[in-house]
Amino acid sequence: MIVDTLALVGTGLIGGSFALALKQAGAVREVLGVGRSPARLTVARELGLIDRAVGWDEAGQADCILLALPVGETEVTLRNLAPHLKAGAIVTDAGSTKANVVEAARAALGGRFADFVPGHPIAGSEQSGPGAARADLFRGKRVVLTPQTDTRAEAVATMRMLWEAAGAQVETLDAALHDRIFAAVSHLPHLAAFALVDELAQRADGDAFFRFAASGFRDFTRIAGSSPEMWRDIALANREALLTELDAYVTALQALRSAVSAEDAEALLAIFSRAREARNHWAHKKP
Amino acid sequence: MIVDTLALVGTGLIGGSFALALKQAGAVREVLGVGRSPARLTVARELGLIDRAVGWDEAGQADCILLALPVGETEVTLRNLAPHLKAGAIVTDAGSTKANVVEAARAALGGRFADFVPGHPIAGSEQSGPGAARADLFRGKRVVLTPQTDTRAEAVATMRMLWEAAGAQVETLDAALHDRIFAAVSHLPHLAAFALVDELAQRADGDAFFRFAASGFRDFTRIAGSSPEMWRDIALANREALLTELDAYVTALQALRSAVSAEDAEALLAIFSRAREARNHWAHKKP
Repeated sequence: MIVDTLALVGTGLIGGSFALALKQAGAVREVLGVGRSPARLTVARELGLIDRAVGWDEAGQADCILLALPVGETEVTLRNLAPHLKAGAIVTDAGSTKANVVEAARAALGGRFADFVPGHPIAGSEQSGPGAARADLFRGKRVVLTPQTDTRAEAVATMRMLWEAAGAQVETLDAALHDRIFAAVSHLPHLAAFALVDELAQRADGDAFFRFAASGFRDFTRIAGSSPEMWRDIALANREALLTELDAYVTALQALRSAVSAEDAEALLAIFSRAREARNHWAHKKP
Repeated sequence: MIVDTLALVGTGLIGGSFALALKQAGAVREVLGVGRSPARLTVARELGLIDRAVGWDEAGQADCILLALPVGETEVTLRNLAPHLKAGAIVTDAGSTKANVVEAARAALGGRFADFVPGHPIAGSEQSGPGAARADLFRGKRVVLTPQTDTRAEAVATMRMLWEAAGAQVETLDAALHDRIFAAVSHLPHLAAFALVDELAQRADGDAFFRFAASGFRDFTRIAGSSPEMWRDIALANREALLTELDAYVTALQALRSAVSAEDAEALLAIFSRAREARNHWAHKKP
């Protein structure tokens, strides 16, 4: 047992999978659930993701409280929780952006900010909700923690043990660097996929196009099936890094457009060859 | 048996899979292979994709000759073949663009153009080469034929039977409409994936980015592992439709950029929600 009690704020894919993994590993005794929607908590209990639904007061008495919510809800959630936090309780999150979460936690938790461990499990799915949760979601996946200089070292060490018990490899990163990296390798691709699908869907004759779309389109656009609310929050929370990436991407597309327009076969072959090499190099290195 | 002899020009993924499927279905007796590279033909024979390697003269005596090559090689290939074509032989192709292939065939085949059936199997993989060929590649997949007004009806009927024997569903489309549709649902996504990966790979600190790329990135960029030569040819062959699509896509990305920049949460949610709905609607309808 690493902690006695875990409380989830958010019992969807990420929160639910964390709870299932820790229960299966024997790393936690009891899992509590808290949130606005009694109906969702009932579903979470029926699916075995939580043992009991509780209020903010009881959730604050847990040893570890995980926020697994759209990042825009971080501050208001922590303000609900803050008055009830027991001494030594660790608060953590699973948001896809970190600088804004750190800022929100600092504002909401005040003197208890040292107990907040910002985290981001690099695992997910275009599926969401409690029904998608599974105990092996984090197995072999990376979890990035972005502790601040004033974060309590023991809290970071406990979160590392919990994520490792869930099967993940834990790394630490500077929060701003985290946001810059994920703007490029995650947030931009999601927006690029949303934009491509929406552009087609808006056409009067869009059905004729979708009719012939095949496996390449399926994979390229899989992430356009992701939660709109979650991605709205991420786009706003990581606005500056994302704008930089969008600009770099549009510049790259314009360069490609110029090569197509000029029928520059060599330039096209060079771009495609470099991309294939980089992509295959990456794909073969991944676990 | 639908035809006695099939000749492949190009014994890679598409040509090899067509031959394997027809052999397995008993739709063809003998498969010949022809091409510049004796080494590739030897591999194709060892893999059982062809029965014999032959020259252009003997290939022209086959009942059906399939070109499964980068589309830029269509005209020179057909010029090699034309002098040797026996009466009644059907020539067909598997290229991803059709208007330019039709034009090349008309130029190279002259009076025999009526025997050319332009085709495009909507199946593929980022894998390529003879080793990737498999008998079930086309099962349940669409094949688009774009016959012209002067294409011989019996030749079209035979190609339909052959593709159906390989397990595919055959449809016919106008060649220009084909090119416009595939520019949007296939060619643009490929170029968008190549551009995204290359833009990252060109960065001095690109390794730090690839290190944290995860499953969303993997799927979004899978098609960036495709053959650079094949995609160079497609981009040039379908230049005009592709430029139109690139412009529409950049406009969509700029609109998304404006919404992020203005922190317009409602606009972002609207774009993401429409895209998710369209994508899920499409994914659930697909066979």
